[in-house]
Amino acid sequence: MSQHLPPAPSTDSAAPALDVHQRLAASRAPLPASSKTHEPGVLHPHLRVPLREILLTNGERIAVYDTSGPYTDPAESTDVRLGLPTPRAAWIEARGDTEPYTGRPIQLFDDGLRESHQQQALRAQTDALTRAPRRARAGGNVSQMHYARRGIITAEMEYVAIRENGRRAWMKEYCADTEREDRLRGQGLGASIPGFITPEFVRDEIARGRAILPANINHPELEPMAIGRNFLVKVNANIGNSAVSSGIEEEVEKLVWATRWGADTVMDLSTGRNIHTTRDWIIRNSPVPIGTVPIYQALEKVGGVAEELTWALFRDTLIEQAEQGVDYFTIHAGVRLPFVPMTVKRRTGIVSRGGSILAKWCIAHHRENFLYTHFEEICEIMKAYDVSFSLGDGLRPGSLADANDEAQFAELRTLGELTKIAWRHDVQTMIEGPGHVPMHMIQANMTEQLKHCDEAPFYTLGPLTTDIAPGYDHITSGIGAAMIGWFGCAMLCYVTPKEHLGLPDREDVKQGLMAYRIAAHAADIAKGHPAARARDDALSKARFEFRWEDQFNLGLDPETAREFHDETLPKDSAKVAHFCSMCGPKFCSMKITQDVREYSARLEADGAPEGMQAGMQAKSAEFRAAGSELYIPIQPA
Amino acid sequence: MSQHLPPAPSTDSAAPALDVHQRLAASRAPLPASSKTHEPGVLHPHLRVPLREILLTNGERIAVYDTSGPYTDPAESTDVRLGLPTPRAAWIEARGDTEPYTGRPIQLFDDGLRESHQQQALRAQTDALTRAPRRARAGGNVSQMHYARRGIITAEMEYVAIRENGRRAWMKEYCADTEREDRLRGQGLGASIPGFITPEFVRDEIARGRAILPANINHPELEPMAIGRNFLVKVNANIGNSAVSSGIEEEVEKLVWATRWGADTVMDLSTGRNIHTTRDWIIRNSPVPIGTVPIYQALEKVGGVAEELTWALFRDTLIEQAEQGVDYFTIHAGVRLPFVPMTVKRRTGIVSRGGSILAKWCIAHHRENFLYTHFEEICEIMKAYDVSFSLGDGLRPGSLADANDEAQFAELRTLGELTKIAWRHDVQTMIEGPGHVPMHMIQANMTEQLKHCDEAPFYTLGPLTTDIAPGYDHITSGIGAAMIGWFGCAMLCYVTPKEHLGLPDREDVKQGLMAYRIAAHAADIAKGHPAARARDDALSKARFEFRWEDQFNLGLDPETAREFHDETLPKDSAKVAHFCSMCGPKFCSMKITQDVREYSARLEADGAPEGMQAGMQAKSAEFRAAGSELYIPIQPA
Repeated sequence: MSQHLPPAPSTDSAAPALDVHQRLAASRAPLPASSKTHEPGVLHPHLRVPLREILLTNGERIAVYDTSGPYTDPAESTDVRLGLPTPRAAWIEARGDTEPYTGRPIQLFDDGLRESHQQQALRAQTDALTRAPRRARAGGNVSQMHYARRGIITAEMEYVAIRENGRRAWMKEYCADTEREDRLRGQGLGASIPGFITPEFVRDEIARGRAILPANINHPELEPMAIGRNFLVKVNANIGNSAVSSGIEEEVEKLVWATRWGADTVMDLSTGRNIHTTRDWIIRNSPVPIGTVPIYQALEKVGGVAEELTWALFRDTLIEQAEQGVDYFTIHAGVRLPFVPMTVKRRTGIVSRGGSILAKWCIAHHRENFLYTHFEEICEIMKAYDVSFSLGDGLRPGSLADANDEAQFAELRTLGELTKIAWRHDVQTMIEGPGHVPMHMIQANMTEQLKHCDEAPFYTLGPLTTDIAPGYDHITSGIGAAMIGWFGCAMLCYVTPKEHLGLPDREDVKQGLMAYRIAAHAADIAKGHPAARARDDALSKARFEFRWEDQFNLGLDPETAREFHDETLPKDSAKVAHFCSMCGPKFCSMKITQDVREYSARLEADGAPEGMQAGMQAKSAEFRAAGSELYIPIQPA
Repeated sequence: MSQHLPPAPSTDSAAPALDVHQRLAASRAPLPASSKTHEPGVLHPHLRVPLREILLTNGERIAVYDTSGPYTDPAESTDVRLGLPTPRAAWIEARGDTEPYTGRPIQLFDDGLRESHQQQALRAQTDALTRAPRRARAGGNVSQMHYARRGIITAEMEYVAIRENGRRAWMKEYCADTEREDRLRGQGLGASIPGFITPEFVRDEIARGRAILPANINHPELEPMAIGRNFLVKVNANIGNSAVSSGIEEEVEKLVWATRWGADTVMDLSTGRNIHTTRDWIIRNSPVPIGTVPIYQALEKVGGVAEELTWALFRDTLIEQAEQGVDYFTIHAGVRLPFVPMTVKRRTGIVSRGGSILAKWCIAHHRENFLYTHFEEICEIMKAYDVSFSLGDGLRPGSLADANDEAQFAELRTLGELTKIAWRHDVQTMIEGPGHVPMHMIQANMTEQLKHCDEAPFYTLGPLTTDIAPGYDHITSGIGAAMIGWFGCAMLCYVTPKEHLGLPDREDVKQGLMAYRIAAHAADIAKGHPAARARDDALSKARFEFRWEDQFNLGLDPETAREFHDETLPKDSAKVAHFCSMCGPKFCSMKITQDVREYSARLEADGAPEGMQAGMQAKSAEFRAAGSELYIPIQPA
């Protein structure tokens, strides 16, 4: 997703006093009342699929999806200078279809055109992180799609199945009421989500192209996850290098922070200096898939002059990044020369950075986009490392006025053609989408994408549903993101409050992730993912029973919830009080409900017919029989 | 809307150093580059309908809807101790169907059971604000609906028509492109929004019951507005009295703050002490309709013991508040005794405060809700002052688990019956709605409401689309609010980030309003309100042309937008720079679009056929004729 807001390095509005080591330590502390727990595999018994277990005050243990990796596990002594453990390395090796080799040597311009002392110093930190790359044996294809199509359920696929299901034992209580389950049943709108996700289902979805499992063989630190309409909706966060980096901790802390708040994948959109070295640091320390937009680095290599880009240089950059372990590449191969003039009448032209670069190249040379003309060669690289395509929407609308226009949909149809080519190579593929789209035009985006791209996963930026709220675009876009997630979008690229205005700081990244975790979860409920709604129920039950601690800890952001509560009622005793600050002790609606329950129980004990509460008519008769003054007919005055 | 989060008095996280006078002064300063402008009437030439005019750096003048009243008009020397000017007084008097009379004397318990020195002191501040009430002459009906049904277009109705249209002159440029207008045309989903809103249309909508114009004849300070699915979606903000009030300024400042950020109506949900006096202060200083939940004050009068509520006491409270000028009353007449036991199996029982009070009363007495049995008597009061009904949803769901259940829909059907009774009295009526509803169940709420309440305006609290984000419920609910606004909901009751946790402070109120102004505007665009989208276009144009000041000033919150921008690029020169912090000067996607325009112009000058840009085929031929290397067919590798 060619979004362009890497976090700023030093303007940390949330905690300005913390240095990077303190921030990193804070980002690694387990969330309140939480501990890491693991599920084993069956087909692959060695698997340890992580979950976050929240211990409630009533003894219940609620396990939730966990993107934070080993960082929040006190049992793991991670050191960002050495990188994460590499559980996948054994799985990859065991398949016997890859080989290590001497990779492309690092070049002068990989980190910027001129070598500086600072760069040498930063690079020196990276030695302990450098590993020999692997690739498919000659002519081989090591993509998860390739395995899936040959009927192989990889360890990664089983891992995903377990992760998507979550731990169903605790959910049972919350799904026991048949009337409620029927009433709340999701509307899949064409999705095919099973009640239980088997490894075979994961395999089938990947084989079909309806899901991807981004997992470069050079990223053995990865905790596998899937992106597809029949799985949980995923969220991507963008990060970028600092203008003046202090080293590994500075860059990795952003990643850890983003995964702490629920980033399922992270895109490294670094520009300027130290791109290569920063990427080493990030990937070696990342439990989530890392995506990049290789054209950004390629452009740096030609001094920022788009016209000077060449296929040879771009290809070299793809190999450079594939060897490092990037899991998916944004490739703007749909920005075709004939579509460029379609943007002339737009309100806001071309707003994708990648789209702009390629449009500029096309018109400068009066030639077709070299990513389009070399697309099959790119596929050859992708399958040797299992890098997934994220086919970029370089012509996405930058304003409501340009939504769903000819340029956008022409590009989308091209992305559909390219998807089929990638699939012929068994290369995993998802499709990027807009952007700025009013609510009533969102469904058409999803419908067109499903049709032209044959259900390849859709990955959208928002969409923003209005242009008039700079400073609040995490909300303008959170609305569109929730809707398109319901309609079938597989991954949502977050937008921060700084969108259109500047570089997000740490707090902006968190705010963007909160808005997008909400959007994704709301979508999961609406489309009926079987592991989604139980957490809402558990939190609501805690709320109703005045278990304040549990309400905080089951929420997406326990610390903020607690802080907000404590502003009004700071005393610890208030957290067990059977009332809240909204109504006070004498006037509590939830307390009154207890009275209602007693009343109903009393009525029933007095001999009212079984199940009477459910029937208004029966109740009415009961009351009339009691000689009360009920149901006085309303008379015209 | 029986929401219960009155702002806390002193915890002003945004500007803790400001005292109330400074805050009030800050709330009254015009927004950046903005000035008050007025449109006259035609049928009623004396009308002065306010708009906020934003002067852009290119000389354009963009006029937008303005809820802030005379406060942001430097030409008005408002003094909260004397109250606002009363433009409506003359219109009301001119109709000749009302008379002043000696109102109900203030009673000891109106402000709390025991009279204190502090209360006496506060009351003394109110003398200059006290006015003799008016009511309809004996047997008369002074509701806007009554006039509308007799074919009368009141001044209020013409005012609304002008306000809803906005100033179309500046919008023309932004709506000139036929292709774009067709592409972006709203989907009304059964709404009947005309291209231009005439006074006669407003009259007809009110006569039909499809819109209300809440306007108590004792609220002559009001700037009329309408609530209905064929008008702009409106937003309500809740405020409440301070635990320890310092006086008029303290309470009025909250109102001014809320209207500054776009509250179309304000509900005064005060509890505890000084309810009556606070209400005097608020209404006399309010340019927007004020709503209340009279049962809250009635409960205070009986010391918080719901069982002791009586019809006589409640009726007296209605008259007390109607005389003060409250524009709409939440009346929970649909919480019927037989529905109460339907809530027993709920996850979260009854969560509406008003609903709880009445449920408690019903079960304590084993009798039908006295608001239901006395509904026609309430109508008699409403029409003598033109107070509008907001029929409360006391059984709204408090969690996703309880959404759209039997209790909720049984109450909704009852509200439909009551609507028809109110309409027989020509009493204006809207219907309150939930609450907590997952996305896929929102439409059913709207459909049921339209069906059972015959298109009477719907007024919902959110709905929240997930329960798992305490601290972020302005976002969980902003998603649902935007959707239901599109589906036909007429007014959205805001939710602040403190929902479920504590009392909102000033910053929370603003955050809630921002989320809800976004939701309402996104809905207006989706349903196709003719005055909605031009502002998005104007802002996007400013963004594309690097008119940073204009981008900020056209946004919902110019100050935050500017502040965010300046964090990264603080220099004034950056605000006229043709680049932004996201890409930097060499790498700007919007700049590249300029190149694309030049390229296209050059192609056209070289003799390409007219309109070629629009046609991919034509372009392709053109390029092929030029002997370029375009469209190299993709060969399998």
